[in-house]
Amino acid sequence: MAKRVAIVGAGVCGLASIKCCLEEGLEPTCFERSDDLGGLWRFTEHVEEGRASLYKSVISNSSKEMSCYSDFPFPEDCPSYVPNSRFLEYLKMYANRFNLLKCIQFKTKVCSVTKRPDFAVTGQWEVVTLREGKRESAIFDGVMVCIGFLTNPFLPLDSFPGINTFKGQYFHSRQYKHPDIFKDKKVLVIGMGNSGTDIAVEASHVAEKVFLSTTGGSWVVSRVCDAGYPSDMVMQTRFENMFINCLPTPIVNWLMAKRMNRWFNHTNYGLVPKDRTRLREPVLNDELPGRIITGKVIIKPSVKEVKENSVIFNNTPKEEPIDIIVFATGYTFAFPFLDETVVKVEDGQASLYKYIFPAHLQKSTLAIIGLIDSLGSRIPMGEIQARWAVRVLKGVNKLPPPSVMIEEVNAKKENKHSGFGLRYRKVLQTGYIAYVDELLTYMNAKPNLFSMLLTDPRLALTVFFGPCTPYQFRLTGPGKWEGARNAILTQWDRTIKATKTRTVEEPPSPFASLLKLFSFLALLVAIFLLL
Amino acid sequence: MAKRVAIVGAGVCGLASIKCCLEEGLEPTCFERSDDLGGLWRFTEHVEEGRASLYKSVISNSSKEMSCYSDFPFPEDCPSYVPNSRFLEYLKMYANRFNLLKCIQFKTKVCSVTKRPDFAVTGQWEVVTLREGKRESAIFDGVMVCIGFLTNPFLPLDSFPGINTFKGQYFHSRQYKHPDIFKDKKVLVIGMGNSGTDIAVEASHVAEKVFLSTTGGSWVVSRVCDAGYPSDMVMQTRFENMFINCLPTPIVNWLMAKRMNRWFNHTNYGLVPKDRTRLREPVLNDELPGRIITGKVIIKPSVKEVKENSVIFNNTPKEEPIDIIVFATGYTFAFPFLDETVVKVEDGQASLYKYIFPAHLQKSTLAIIGLIDSLGSRIPMGEIQARWAVRVLKGVNKLPPPSVMIEEVNAKKENKHSGFGLRYRKVLQTGYIAYVDELLTYMNAKPNLFSMLLTDPRLALTVFFGPCTPYQFRLTGPGKWEGARNAILTQWDRTIKATKTRTVEEPPSPFASLLKLFSFLALLVAIFLLL
Repeated sequence: MAKRVAIVGAGVCGLASIKCCLEEGLEPTCFERSDDLGGLWRFTEHVEEGRASLYKSVISNSSKEMSCYSDFPFPEDCPSYVPNSRFLEYLKMYANRFNLLKCIQFKTKVCSVTKRPDFAVTGQWEVVTLREGKRESAIFDGVMVCIGFLTNPFLPLDSFPGINTFKGQYFHSRQYKHPDIFKDKKVLVIGMGNSGTDIAVEASHVAEKVFLSTTGGSWVVSRVCDAGYPSDMVMQTRFENMFINCLPTPIVNWLMAKRMNRWFNHTNYGLVPKDRTRLREPVLNDELPGRIITGKVIIKPSVKEVKENSVIFNNTPKEEPIDIIVFATGYTFAFPFLDETVVKVEDGQASLYKYIFPAHLQKSTLAIIGLIDSLGSRIPMGEIQARWAVRVLKGVNKLPPPSVMIEEVNAKKENKHSGFGLRYRKVLQTGYIAYVDELLTYMNAKPNLFSMLLTDPRLALTVFFGPCTPYQFRLTGPGKWEGARNAILTQWDRTIKATKTRTVEEPPSPFASLLKLFSFLALLVAIFLLL
Repeated sequence: MAKRVAIVGAGVCGLASIKCCLEEGLEPTCFERSDDLGGLWRFTEHVEEGRASLYKSVISNSSKEMSCYSDFPFPEDCPSYVPNSRFLEYLKMYANRFNLLKCIQFKTKVCSVTKRPDFAVTGQWEVVTLREGKRESAIFDGVMVCIGFLTNPFLPLDSFPGINTFKGQYFHSRQYKHPDIFKDKKVLVIGMGNSGTDIAVEASHVAEKVFLSTTGGSWVVSRVCDAGYPSDMVMQTRFENMFINCLPTPIVNWLMAKRMNRWFNHTNYGLVPKDRTRLREPVLNDELPGRIITGKVIIKPSVKEVKENSVIFNNTPKEEPIDIIVFATGYTFAFPFLDETVVKVEDGQASLYKYIFPAHLQKSTLAIIGLIDSLGSRIPMGEIQARWAVRVLKGVNKLPPPSVMIEEVNAKKENKHSGFGLRYRKVLQTGYIAYVDELLTYMNAKPNLFSMLLTDPRLALTVFFGPCTPYQFRLTGPGKWEGARNAILTQWDRTIKATKTRTVEEPPSPFASLLKLFSFLALLVAIFLLL
């Protein structure tokens, strides 16, 4: 009998998990709390309990070629960076294409996932769900938790003396939907992650004044990178990954600072990161420097004190009148339906082997998918986790005994530099490719570049020097996709096609003609001299 | 008795003209049709007849250091690119500082400016005005026309077959004030000048879909240039000007294309200019490529046909549903109060000597100020025209006889490449500095860089290699300003101060320390080897 797997959540990772189960012959049942799929990518006008909440204008942070499922490229005419409504469309296309809907139970909340009494032998779980007031219980051979980590707002009010006296409005960025509320207001956004920056920039189009307060600062990267190519396609290559790994960290940091400052000097714009010894995830925003240079967004250091109608920042005693404060201070994480003996979150970290399996369980039949916050795109990352996890659940891939896993997890916890657990924030940019390759190796699905160079040099060079697109994870081994090679060789075509919506017959450059003429003359002279 | 000068319009050029008249001991009277100063820079919620109309979000196209009056820098805390409300504030500060208000008659429309019967001898003009229903007439020794050229919309409906059947809304960009009207609509903006691009980008934040249609395409430049410095401060230097002048045009064009494509490849974004043999004024926009790569603005070629609820473009037979069409198709020009015998506008051009004086008049007592559309900022350009024109009106600078002026004007008309008359659009970027230097030479106010290099090398190098800021026009000769030198040497400080609103104590880079260590070791080795 096929093993039964419970999947919690029908977002990007949930969908990938269903598909992987189906492909490996397992029997998935996906429980989705809301009434539709898409997880965080489904925008609603009102915040829904227990589901991540988007603002209307959210656009993907990684390009379509880097953030698709590895065997399902985005349509050709889709823009390189995908607005949320189109992203949701894509997820629905994926669900239809692979017939995933039949496995999803909507409006079903998972109340608890507990070990069965015979867990040590069977590894089975009892999953209790609630659906339209009806409580149900079922037994599963495996559980895949795909609930994301942008649901529980972190609102550190204690760090803002005087906030209780503030007479204006304040809220967490999770509550934000439209910029209209900022019209003609004096706005303060606290926190310079992607959301905080997006919100400040959006507010600046309608507000009277916008301050963006950041303690640590951040590098800011544009989606429009060198010569207009998507920044992640330019930066995330195996070549660059190898190059960076060969250099000592101080030089990498120095090179990184140089590259980051090429667009604009972060010191002059008040954004320079305080701590540059570790690479943080850069903020992705195309407009911020343009809003700063026009005075529409004013960068400020941390808040010293909040007063009734104003705020004092840490660099000047001057009070700045403020009407609205937005706390873009991030999220905390919890597994409400899991016992602490299964997964314990401490200090924003959980002891997960390869960021997936609770290390101490006697049977590795529960996987946490997509709970990492790396510099790579989350979809292919979650998908590859699901592929491997499903193979572990199925029993074709084995894990080491708990003691070994615990040891590795603890060793990683020590090594703060490479990050750990829920939070990858401080991991080096190299983390993404290294991590994916590791999982591919376990599955025996990692392409061998050396042998490829002999058999298919064009592909090998594109894989090595080109963007590390997810199709690379489908070239060989279990889960191989016949379309992968072609998808890799046409990745730039799909990228350019979406923006090249007006073409001009390019006249031959007169300079080029001149060059040709010169070359011809030089050739003549050379021939003459040789004779 | 001091000569009386009538100034038409109290915008940027009108204000400069009043000040120049006062400084040269003439007696200016400025007639302003509306009830306040500022001309195009005064935003109102409703379009006013006879005055340029701004949309709410307009921000200056040249940086504050490049676009100030030459003896009146913007305040230090003003952002580098100035939102319209702050620009108006600046103009009011200027008017107050130099006590110009006393010379302005508000709510006074100039009905006609005609030659007096004895014009051939006296050069005098009769100016008829209308103020609160009261018609008045007065005699002036000189007239300065400062009415700008962004008042009469050019709406080429004939070029859009089917526009009469269109059931949606359409209007000229002059009517545009706020993006709210585009909410959830399908919008088409026609014309890719600065306004058209701004409007498309703004619409894209609220509209369902935005098309930007351009026949010719354009280079797009960001305000945030190399390493974040204001683009005009980087590009407009005497050094670069000289460099460009030394090279053949095809090479200049090729270099320019290379520079323009550094931010993003204009071909891949559908924006590449059709005609690259001449340099057009580039469009200044910080957001456009970011909006294109996210699919929020879709670039299209020219319109083939307009239907009831849709538009067909010239590259595909597919109809695109459209709700609103904005014609950002520019402006035409006319001098309603001047007889055609004084200035005649033909084919968008007028026969003006040095783009200021009608060439054929027996007496050069009428000057058109600020009627050029160059790549430089319009304020210092208008101001320098006013300075010279006032000296001509006063009689201290002489013009050649009409026959010579007409000959020069006609010769320039022939030479299409260097542009002429009202429209400088096709003039090379070098035009600004060359033109300003020419007028400075006439006034004997052009700084001599060679002698300066001997007496004040720091200043000379800054003037030559640094941005050609307007303070350079006040270093010497009539109109010399004592603060000019200091203003030039502190221009970058004022630029950076406005955005560096958060500072971080920069830790010594470990790489720099490493470099120092290596240098030290190398030195030791060198000493050792030498001994």
